[in-house]
Amino acid sequence: MAQGLLLVISGPSGVGKGTICKALRERNHEIVYSISATTRLPRPGEVDGVSYYFLSPQEFLEALEKGDFLEWAQVYGNYYGTPAWFVEEQLAVGRNVILEIDMQGAMKVKQTYPHGVFIFVLPPSQEELARRLIGRCTDAKDVIAKRLAAWKEEMKTIDNYDYAVVNDEVELAVKKIEAIIEAERCRVARRNRD
Amino acid sequence: MAQGLLLVISGPSGVGKGTICKALRERNHEIVYSISATTRLPRPGEVDGVSYYFLSPQEFLEALEKGDFLEWAQVYGNYYGTPAWFVEEQLAVGRNVILEIDMQGAMKVKQTYPHGVFIFVLPPSQEELARRLIGRCTDAKDVIAKRLAAWKEEMKTIDNYDYAVVNDEVELAVKKIEAIIEAERCRVARRNRD
Repeated sequence: MAQGLLLVISGPSGVGKGTICKALRERNHEIVYSISATTRLPRPGEVDGVSYYFLSPQEFLEALEKGDFLEWAQVYGNYYGTPAWFVEEQLAVGRNVILEIDMQGAMKVKQTYPHGVFIFVLPPSQEELARRLIGRCTDAKDVIAKRLAAWKEEMKTIDNYDYAVVNDEVELAVKKIEAIIEAERCRVARRNRD
Repeated sequence: MAQGLLLVISGPSGVGKGTICKALRERNHEIVYSISATTRLPRPGEVDGVSYYFLSPQEFLEALEKGDFLEWAQVYGNYYGTPAWFVEEQLAVGRNVILEIDMQGAMKVKQTYPHGVFIFVLPPSQEELARRLIGRCTDAKDVIAKRLAAWKEEMKTIDNYDYAVVNDEVELAVKKIEAIIEAERCRVARRNRD
């Protein structure tokens, strides 16, 4: 059986990664989301192995030492990581796994799993990105200003990605990602890995 | 404007390259066929600049010396070549150009134009290839035997291609090539070339 693809969907915050990933999964039920591991406590309704893998700090650090994460980070005193075991299990049975992640995380994944398909989601323009960040109303003005300042720096990392998809319309962006999946399945370099 | 793509469609004889290219163009009128140059005389109904570019042997050799062909060959005393000028003109105005060519020719094109998208068309199996060659009824049995013997050798060249598309059903194969075109347009490496 052909290996599945690890689709790493990244791009600046506010660009619409989440919306794209949701629409992509709604149209392609065979794609699975990567499940993260975390040391933070479960919130009401969160299920271990579905929402997250909930690990104790000791368990997390032991897994980290064994190289069990594709990437990891510490945020507000809690650890978060992408477990290699889940991704590898799914890929081995031919399922495509989607990993929606910030750009720093994506570049860490590239180091540990260079065979992933790295997709950078672009806003139609910097102006549109600003409009969307403001439209979300979840961020303070100074946060938005900082994000836009970071934007130019972030754009420099695009060369590390395989594909760039402009999110002008969600449906068009999703169709492009579907085409990328189909094309990647035909790549000779992947035939030889199977 | 973004450059067009040079789609090099190759594969063993009898695999159905011609049928695929025809169906691909019927569904995508914006794709143009590469027009070959030749020193053979026009047949009734053939139009210069449409069927072929008809050149005198001297014109052909002069063009050859200037490096004006992506690839060329001599067949039964006549020269045939793929004019770089036609392909480059079309790509420059953003059109995708399709070049249906044997595997030797494809590899020559790769040397002169490595940015092409090299697609290898595969039969579903060696048995199916034999069935198709016999079904065409145009080839003598010893020719068919030779073609099948060449098949294993030819398969070794597949690593030089970007994509392999199995021609099990023409419509499926065409859809895969359409996905490849869409994906290649999103490739970061191409963004930077434009």
